[in-house]
Amino acid sequence: MSQADQTLVEGSPKLRQLLSCIADDLSAVEQRLQSELHSRVPQVDEVVRHGYRLGGKRLRPALVLLAGQATGELSDEHLTLAAVVEMIHTATLVHDDVLDEAQLRRHEDTVNARWNNETSVLLGDFLFSHSFYLASTTGSAEACQTIGRATNVVCEGEMQQTLSEGDFGLSQADYLAIITAKTAELCACCCELGARQSGADDATIERLASFGRNLGIAFQIADDLLDLMSDEKATGKTTGADLAKRKMTLPLIHARDALVNGPRANFVDLLESADLERIRAQVKLLGSLDYANRMATNYARRAAADLAELPANPALESLVGLANFAAARTS
Amino acid sequence: MSQADQTLVEGSPKLRQLLSCIADDLSAVEQRLQSELHSRVPQVDEVVRHGYRLGGKRLRPALVLLAGQATGELSDEHLTLAAVVEMIHTATLVHDDVLDEAQLRRHEDTVNARWNNETSVLLGDFLFSHSFYLASTTGSAEACQTIGRATNVVCEGEMQQTLSEGDFGLSQADYLAIITAKTAELCACCCELGARQSGADDATIERLASFGRNLGIAFQIADDLLDLMSDEKATGKTTGADLAKRKMTLPLIHARDALVNGPRANFVDLLESADLERIRAQVKLLGSLDYANRMATNYARRAAADLAELPANPALESLVGLANFAAARTS
Repeated sequence: MSQADQTLVEGSPKLRQLLSCIADDLSAVEQRLQSELHSRVPQVDEVVRHGYRLGGKRLRPALVLLAGQATGELSDEHLTLAAVVEMIHTATLVHDDVLDEAQLRRHEDTVNARWNNETSVLLGDFLFSHSFYLASTTGSAEACQTIGRATNVVCEGEMQQTLSEGDFGLSQADYLAIITAKTAELCACCCELGARQSGADDATIERLASFGRNLGIAFQIADDLLDLMSDEKATGKTTGADLAKRKMTLPLIHARDALVNGPRANFVDLLESADLERIRAQVKLLGSLDYANRMATNYARRAAADLAELPANPALESLVGLANFAAARTS
Repeated sequence: MSQADQTLVEGSPKLRQLLSCIADDLSAVEQRLQSELHSRVPQVDEVVRHGYRLGGKRLRPALVLLAGQATGELSDEHLTLAAVVEMIHTATLVHDDVLDEAQLRRHEDTVNARWNNETSVLLGDFLFSHSFYLASTTGSAEACQTIGRATNVVCEGEMQQTLSEGDFGLSQADYLAIITAKTAELCACCCELGARQSGADDATIERLASFGRNLGIAFQIADDLLDLMSDEKATGKTTGADLAKRKMTLPLIHARDALVNGPRANFVDLLESADLERIRAQVKLLGSLDYANRMATNYARRAAADLAELPANPALESLVGLANFAAARTS
């Protein structure tokens, strides 16, 4: 069974169905990733191959391919660009795992758990660098520029987030700005790359980019909810990492803002304590989970609205389905 | 006084003279670096600007410009590419400082000392990403590819070095392979970029690249010697970092190989102890400093030989002078 199949199997039947129109292309992207990610130095090769296994859910390659197919014909360059964005995403995951001191990722040891933080930093650098190299092999300096610009925004967002750790007064607006930069920008970039590679006009490219941005926000809100509420066994990731790192997420911000005076101060003390069970009980009580879920759904709706005026086709429908899936996912 | 002037003033009069034919261009590169390195997020902006101040000695931009001028006319793209390679180098410095747990760089606090390791990791990522973005603005996918390929090799070399820490049996061949990848490859890339941008033919580009590689090896041997032997006040960098990280460098490898049996085992124990003063005394006694200096000089000679058949001009002479300077530098 190929890695792509495994990834699809791990996803729900619903997700598998959404991606069925690009299943073969996703497999081809996996092959490209595997053939690109190696090193002539044996010790280094082992690390690089492990990094490959830690990759994401292939959401970003799917966005490139679906955006490409929704607006034209898929080409070999689409596959390359899909591999590029997955590599960038994996680089950020590997560095995130250093920052979060996480031990588990997709049911595997993280690189920092198996080797050490230094190796993780360098593997992330290798993945970044290789992704840019691979992007350049398309011969399109414009694609390189789109990718470089998006990655810049991602890094700025990550830095803003890190510098905001321990700021329990973080506003909802700042939270949204951070997740828009650190997560949604790369999703927007994926859709933009896919559509431009298919020769779409500027207005269509802009719609796809806006779709990707809204989907990305919905996805990150859902991701933060999972970190707070889910079971480690189900997600295959360390949970409660945000609280441990004193990172404010949407349900916590909502709960804090629903309280005043003493109760608010008590809630902030509770956040300081990072007592996961008691925090979970409080955010449920204050309706903050519902609020965060509604916000994710709203962004998925905005994403669907971005595509409403484009000519209908199966890939476009899959994109809309993917936005809803991202907002409501359970793993 | 501009940053470029400061950098030149900090260098020796000899270095200033070597770079005099590109002094104005180097100043323009500094301006480009300063205008590129900022963030719309105030907290992030502060970190990015600090990162700029930690940059290198501008050796790499000088290589791009001198290689360009030695083989043709300098253009605006040369300045952009010079800024790109300096940004990449700064990214690796910032990540090196995390790996080495260094506190000082160019007489300034490192990013990890002033903020924390997380911020350093992300600043390095931002610098990598921005360098690729900037490279793409030249419109040359070929330049992006050369840069991406070189950065890959640099990351592999750094990973191999990290995975070799604590291996006191590291061979001279492996040491040379590591420094060729982690340092010399980017110097080769600088010269290649400069020459290609000037329209040089393939044979000339190859000569310049080989020159850069040999210069880079000489530079790194000298750098490792400085880490072992120099005074922290003179270099503005933490010294003894290699020993603290159990990293083998050329004088240590030579000293180990000059000994057998008991004395060799004792020397390895001494390396384990990281007792800087006693190790310094031993490598002096065994002629290992002289050996490493001779090796650096030999690589500088090879670099000069790479350029011997090209038509003479002041920029070419400066390149040769720079190779000698790199091998014999004292800070």
